[in-house]
Amino acid sequence: MAAIKSPLPDDAQKVAGEALQGSLIDLIDLSLTAKQAHWNLTGRNFKVVHEHLDEIVALARGGQDDVAERAVAIGVNPDGRARTVADRTKNPQLEAGYLADDKVVAAITDLLAQIIARFRERITATDEPDPVTQDLLIAIARELEKQHWMFQAQT
Amino acid sequence: MAAIKSPLPDDAQKVAGEALQGSLIDLIDLSLTAKQAHWNLTGRNFKVVHEHLDEIVALARGGQDDVAERAVAIGVNPDGRARTVADRTKNPQLEAGYLADDKVVAAITDLLAQIIARFRERITATDEPDPVTQDLLIAIARELEKQHWMFQAQT
Amino acid sequence: MAAIKSPLPDDAQKVAGEALQGSLIDLIDLSLTAKQAHWNLTGRNFKVVHEHLDEIVALARGGQDDVAERAVAIGVNPDGRARTVADRTKNPQLEAGYLADDKVVAAITDLLAQIIARFRERITATDEPDPVTQDLLIAIARELEKQHWMFQAQT
Amino acid sequence: MAAIKSPLPDDAQKVAGEALQGSLIDLIDLSLTAKQAHWNLTGRNFKVVHEHLDEIVALARGGQDDVAERAVAIGVNPDGRARTVADRTKNPQLEAGYLADDKVVAAITDLLAQIIARFRERITATDEPDPVTQDLLIAIARELEKQHWMFQAQT
Amino acid sequence: MAAIKSPLPDDAQKVAGEALQGSLIDLIDLSLTAKQAHWNLTGRNFKVVHEHLDEIVALARGGQDDVAERAVAIGVNPDGRARTVADRTKNPQLEAGYLADDKVVAAITDLLAQIIARFRERITATDEPDPVTQDLLIAIARELEKQHWMFQAQT
Amino acid sequence: MAAIKSPLPDDAQKVAGEALQGSLIDLIDLSLTAKQAHWNLTGRNFKVVHEHLDEIVALARGGQDDVAERAVAIGVNPDGRARTVADRTKNPQLEAGYLADDKVVAAITDLLAQIIARFRERITATDEPDPVTQDLLIAIARELEKQHWMFQAQT
Amino acid sequence: MAAIKSPLPDDAQKVAGEALQGSLIDLIDLSLTAKQAHWNLTGRNFKVVHEHLDEIVALARGGQDDVAERAVAIGVNPDGRARTVADRTKNPQLEAGYLADDKVVAAITDLLAQIIARFRERITATDEPDPVTQDLLIAIARELEKQHWMFQAQT
Amino acid sequence: MAAIKSPLPDDAQKVAGEALQGSLIDLIDLSLTAKQAHWNLTGRNFKVVHEHLDEIVALARGGQDDVAERAVAIGVNPDGRARTVADRTKNPQLEAGYLADDKVVAAITDLLAQIIARFRERITATDEPDPVTQDLLIAIARELEKQHWMFQAQT
Amino acid sequence: MAAIKSPLPDDAQKVAGEALQGSLIDLIDLSLTAKQAHWNLTGRNFKVVHEHLDEIVALARGGQDDVAERAVAIGVNPDGRARTVADRTKNPQLEAGYLADDKVVAAITDLLAQIIARFRERITATDEPDPVTQDLLIAIARELEKQHWMFQAQT
Amino acid sequence: MAAIKSPLPDDAQKVAGEALQGSLIDLIDLSLTAKQAHWNLTGRNFKVVHEHLDEIVALARGGQDDVAERAVAIGVNPDGRARTVADRTKNPQLEAGYLADDKVVAAITDLLAQIIARFRERITATDEPDPVTQDLLIAIARELEKQHWMFQAQT
Amino acid sequence: MAAIKSPLPDDAQKVAGEALQGSLIDLIDLSLTAKQAHWNLTGRNFKVVHEHLDEIVALARGGQDDVAERAVAIGVNPDGRARTVADRTKNPQLEAGYLADDKVVAAITDLLAQIIARFRERITATDEPDPVTQDLLIAIARELEKQHWMFQAQT
Amino acid sequence: MAAIKSPLPDDAQKVAGEALQGSLIDLIDLSLTAKQAHWNLTGRNFKVVHEHLDEIVALARGGQDDVAERAVAIGVNPDGRARTVADRTKNPQLEAGYLADDKVVAAITDLLAQIIARFRERITATDEPDPVTQDLLIAIARELEKQHWMFQAQT
Repeated sequence: MAAIKSPLPDDAQKVAGEALQGSLIDLIDLSLTAKQAHWNLTGRNFKVVHEHLDEIVALARGGQDDVAERAVAIGVNPDGRARTVADRTKNPQLEAGYLADDKVVAAITDLLAQIIARFRERITATDEPDPVTQDLLIAIARELEKQHWMFQAQT
Repeated sequence: MAAIKSPLPDDAQKVAGEALQGSLIDLIDLSLTAKQAHWNLTGRNFKVVHEHLDEIVALARGGQDDVAERAVAIGVNPDGRARTVADRTKNPQLEAGYLADDKVVAAITDLLAQIIARFRERITATDEPDPVTQDLLIAIARELEKQHWMFQAQT
Repeated sequence: MAAIKSPLPDDAQKVAGEALQGSLIDLIDLSLTAKQAHWNLTGRNFKVVHEHLDEIVALARGGQDDVAERAVAIGVNPDGRARTVADRTKNPQLEAGYLADDKVVAAITDLLAQIIARFRERITATDEPDPVTQDLLIAIARELEKQHWMFQAQT
Repeated sequence: MAAIKSPLPDDAQKVAGEALQGSLIDLIDLSLTAKQAHWNLTGRNFKVVHEHLDEIVALARGGQDDVAERAVAIGVNPDGRARTVADRTKNPQLEAGYLADDKVVAAITDLLAQIIARFRERITATDEPDPVTQDLLIAIARELEKQHWMFQAQT
Repeated sequence: MAAIKSPLPDDAQKVAGEALQGSLIDLIDLSLTAKQAHWNLTGRNFKVVHEHLDEIVALARGGQDDVAERAVAIGVNPDGRARTVADRTKNPQLEAGYLADDKVVAAITDLLAQIIARFRERITATDEPDPVTQDLLIAIARELEKQHWMFQAQT
Repeated sequence: MAAIKSPLPDDAQKVAGEALQGSLIDLIDLSLTAKQAHWNLTGRNFKVVHEHLDEIVALARGGQDDVAERAVAIGVNPDGRARTVADRTKNPQLEAGYLADDKVVAAITDLLAQIIARFRERITATDEPDPVTQDLLIAIARELEKQHWMFQAQT
Repeated sequence: MAAIKSPLPDDAQKVAGEALQGSLIDLIDLSLTAKQAHWNLTGRNFKVVHEHLDEIVALARGGQDDVAERAVAIGVNPDGRARTVADRTKNPQLEAGYLADDKVVAAITDLLAQIIARFRERITATDEPDPVTQDLLIAIARELEKQHWMFQAQT
Repeated sequence: MAAIKSPLPDDAQKVAGEALQGSLIDLIDLSLTAKQAHWNLTGRNFKVVHEHLDEIVALARGGQDDVAERAVAIGVNPDGRARTVADRTKNPQLEAGYLADDKVVAAITDLLAQIIARFRERITATDEPDPVTQDLLIAIARELEKQHWMFQAQT
Repeated sequence: MAAIKSPLPDDAQKVAGEALQGSLIDLIDLSLTAKQAHWNLTGRNFKVVHEHLDEIVALARGGQDDVAERAVAIGVNPDGRARTVADRTKNPQLEAGYLADDKVVAAITDLLAQIIARFRERITATDEPDPVTQDLLIAIARELEKQHWMFQAQT
Repeated sequence: MAAIKSPLPDDAQKVAGEALQGSLIDLIDLSLTAKQAHWNLTGRNFKVVHEHLDEIVALARGGQDDVAERAVAIGVNPDGRARTVADRTKNPQLEAGYLADDKVVAAITDLLAQIIARFRERITATDEPDPVTQDLLIAIARELEKQHWMFQAQT
Repeated sequence: MAAIKSPLPDDAQKVAGEALQGSLIDLIDLSLTAKQAHWNLTGRNFKVVHEHLDEIVALARGGQDDVAERAVAIGVNPDGRARTVADRTKNPQLEAGYLADDKVVAAITDLLAQIIARFRERITATDEPDPVTQDLLIAIARELEKQHWMFQAQT
Repeated sequence: MAAIKSPLPDDAQKVAGEALQGSLIDLIDLSLTAKQAHWNLTGRNFKVVHEHLDEIVALARGGQDDVAERAVAIGVNPDGRARTVADRTKNPQLEAGYLADDKVVAAITDLLAQIIARFRERITATDEPDPVTQDLLIAIARELEKQHWMFQAQT
């Protein structure tokens, strides 16, 4: 089967593809982590944090689709299978069992900070090779940084 | 942290909890698999299958939330972290790279058949211990079997 | 053309398939009967009964789709052709021409009672072989019994 | 029970009434046929044709109500009971069992062509006696001819 | 102030203009009559007839706008002032004070029959001079005849 | 037929009833006048004034229903028939034929000013006898005064 | 726990608080009564009255929330517990068992008349001490009186 | 007045009827209790708990209608009058006056646990006599248990 | 590739096809002209005319689809390519650059008048050969004549 | 430029105008203050208070428009420019920088109490001169007092 | 008539203006081409491709408005008249008559690739002179590249 | 209270923070100015300009939230208090009292031009330090420039 013909030259395609695949792993794992916390949460602020976490899930799922479809649009196969995510994610993982609300808020704040740092690198990296990909990463970063502030403000 | 107090006796809780945790793994992996196919698909029927796969994703994501929240409601912690899903899933996994539409249809048909078989066992197992959990599993099974027919009808 | 592969063993498939095909005939004929009354109605309560009959039509049409798609999902071909419905229906049929509102209310009450009796038998019959089919029949029966009460309350 | 008093003279009422009753049989049988195909369909184009058939069902059901209510508005009792439809329909009938997608597309194309021919005759017949009925039949014919093109274009 | 330039020759404009002005008076008076009954109604069927009358009001108001704007579009000034309506209406008028539901149903049935007769004449008259105006009158007539049947069916 | 039993004593009923019947005539005539202008309007500001007049129509129609239903709720029969409106309205009437936009704006401004003056009197009159009726009149007056400003601002 | 600090002086708070608490009992009991009739109704007008009663329920429930939240906003604790409602309600109570439609219409008419009389007293009482509370009671009274007319018109 | 004719034999009707009447009392009292807390709540988590309690009210009100209409559909008169609820409820009652948020969360958790225990018994009791009633009780129990977890998680 | 089989005889098809193709050119060019004016407009009435022009665009685009799909439904290929539109349009064309609002209003009035004249001819021409096509052209002509009035009224 | 002609005599206009201008300053400053807190908030209850503050903003913005448009409707120019607000506001102002959630809740409670006191005075002042203005101020006061309770309940 | 005063210096305006005018021609022609294919399409995948083409039309029409309004916002007159589009388009044109689905998919893929190449050049060209225009072109390019992938995936 | 931890280094944070704070002042003052004109407007184009100004308000309010939340997300406290806005705004201020429509159009055109010039500088300044902030400013600038054209086109 022939690859999708990319609108980008090979070098640019390679850089943008890696940025997008890395973002995909970050965002899938973020959605799984946020759901894990959403379900196992306890504490006085349960209701608010429980619902806030679903905003993270929605953001992460919307972002997954955007980055994966951008990857294939430039001729790079996105890989979002369970094994790939588990093996390549650089995100800190939650403990099993009940999770206290304040610990969840701190963990999500930290997790978002780490993902944002990687998005910042990808934004720099894609500036030259593919401003279209860069523009997508900027848009997602803005939402991640907004949520990072909101979780941080609760600590 | 004290566990959520279950409305079920211990035995019933254990059986229902295992059924729900197993269903959770099935459904998370199903959603990741369907998204992987959604993104890497090629072939004359691309548009239709691409959109059909998102119906599977929506079904699987809705089901995840229902079974995980049911688990915690009976005092059992659901575990839907990336590593847990990757290690415990019994579903066959897709190849990396482009995926031809007819192969995807066959793979999803087969995957749904396997998940349905496990749901059938869980429905039998939970009948006595917890009819509330059983009723939820029946509702999800009906949707899975409907999609199983629809994918199979295309082969 | 190969049949759709059923998630049920042969015996269960046969019992559930017959229950579903019988329900399909009941529900198609119910929708045609209710429309016939909807159009030919007269009497002081015309407006209310005219609109109430369309609730029956909506219920019957929604139910048709559910039972027919459930049938094919378990590998049994539903048959809802005009000739099949006319020949196999066990429902009492309306007279041609204008229909007085009180007679329509009585006729629909009676018709629903007969269909409900058959649904009750099918619910019993499918309990063991296919709880998924049974659950669908229970859901439809609940709506039929609710409408049965509402029509009966007007007599 | 006295008949609804018609706004039309007897001759005009008779012609328009026959056109409407004939259309009613056509449209009820069309809806039953399209549902039968919707349920028993197989083939690579299953999903698209399955959904396309429901557009036919919606068109046929909307048209049924319009022609039947037009009939009674001019003092003619519409008859849409199962037995009447089965006995009087002139439409070719589908086989029982699974139906391949390309055969369904051909069958619906042919069926629509036959119904359209009868609608064309009714439009001519009602021009003089009742332009209000004619206008309704023209509106339905336009939708039938549009669908006829769409099914035909797939063959 | 110069008149709106009509797309019709003078003869056609005159015929169509008279048909539209006559329809305007009919429809404004119909809306006022239906509201009068809506407010002063009594009787066991109060609620149903009260709401049904508002369907007449909506139909009459929608029709007013359509015929008046059609008139000005062909260069004829519509006149819908209170005095004009009171002086030129040919409709029978309701008594002041409370109105029993069955009498209202009979009165509206009769009123609709008279308006329909005039619309039928206008449809014939405009066929040659302006098929665009005729098409509009046919559409309104269809709705009037539908309501005529519905009110008549209650008597 | 017995009158609706009023929640008000006779004196209060009489005062409130007259205020409401007067308001009804004002509002029906306002809606007919605004529609007349809506249809026969010309001038550079046609589009804006044409649409603005429909806001007046909507306000007047909503107000009609409220005051008429309030009248009957206190046991007073509202009278909104064409002849009654034509005979009792105190509003200045529009000329027949085309109406220039600036003249319409001036006429509506003046018309609203006159209606507002009468509403102000009714608000004073009903304060003691029926604060419920007064509250309704205040609410309508607020909308009338808002539109009065908006039309006046254009002159 | 300190009380909510009221924007009203003590005397005014006391009068307004009693008016609101009395209204709360009236409205909760009205909603329970209307539901009781909604469920146990029989008779030819079942469908219409059944649905009309739910308009009463919606009105009563909306009103409950408004008066209770107004009470606490002025520093008075509303009490809407089952025991309080049962002991303090002044409304006539329905019989157990089936309820004929005409008797229900009469009973609701009577019940509304009694509640309206008490609202009228509260409107007078709160005029001076708290016009904000009064305005709320007037708004609810208008709706109650509108429904009172509608039920009464059916008798 | 003749009773509604039940689709159930007498024994089954009796068991199902008692289960439904018991559930009705539970759910009405639950809605009144949750509203009482909704209005009198204080504490740092006021806003969240205030809104959360309205989810309980919505659930309890929806459930009331379902169980009461199910009761009458099987020929048993539901009784939801204020006196009946006050006398027969087994739920612990709230204190009058302000209620601290943490105490409310604990009280609702406890209250839901007691209601759930009774629903569990009713689910067991109705399994044989009426699976349609049982299915309804299961559906409500699932929602109650979900809310029970959510309130419990906050303690 | 075989042509779509027409429901019309050859002569009728030819006449209707030409009417539809002519209408298609008119409507595509109208939409391009209206957009050109929408973008390059200046003058005190900019905002109103700018938005009014988009109503023309919406009307013209909706009409394009209807006439083109009607053409292919009767077996005639519509041609709406840029070159065809540019070469065959009979409409006067706008100047490049800024366009004053009053000139635009005059130009659109004139343009609509010309298109309407051609639609009138096509309505006459298609009456006999294809009343279904005629009915579509009448519906579009009504909208064009309504807009023609509205633009003319502003001059 | 001539002033808008007021429906009020000069004395009444002056009193109502001052009440409205004062309310305008209060409400603009309230919206700016609530937004300032919305953005700079921190603390465990960040998410809830952050969203609750936007309810205040929406209330204040809606109120601004109502009072300003009421002012101009009675011929008084509202002044809501930045300098005017800054110079005339009597509200306590927030500190710059981060704001702890409990301090914000206390500050908003206090701020609302002060604004409510002024609204209460304006309600008294406008009773005689302009009941229409008074009615508007009462409606806004009710919402302010409701929010005052909700914020106070959290302290 | 004076030109719109641009926020850009002359050089920047010229570069951005040319990029926008070029994009306008591309997008208008794309919408006409996609509609031509939408209407004349045949083949087994007719329904899917027919609907997919309308996504292209929607994208192209939305983009037209954005680029044309951006052009005039920077003081450059957009030119989208039929003759201009026909003469300046660089896009390959479709044949007249029926178009097979696979050929259409290939043609649209190729057409999108050519348009994308020109957008890439314009994105580079506008980076320095006007980042606001560039940002708009990037957003459109992302959508074009996404559709390019989707059409390509079907070949 | 510790500051929100920024994802930016100090230098970048400072530049972006100043750009955002400046934008915040511009946008709050723009919204207050546009509202002032919205309320005090007079002239023949009152209705259109009155509504157009609310589009400016909506744009300015949406932008305020975006820039202020972006500021705090990078650890900089936005300051949007009345005093700050009044003291720091660089925008020309409107006169008190009535404002003629043409003067308002000119004033808003000029005001937008000045704000746009500052946004252009901020876009240049933030390119290097924070492309995420820059992207937000570009998006707002595009809307401001679009409105600038629309107001300018009316002069």
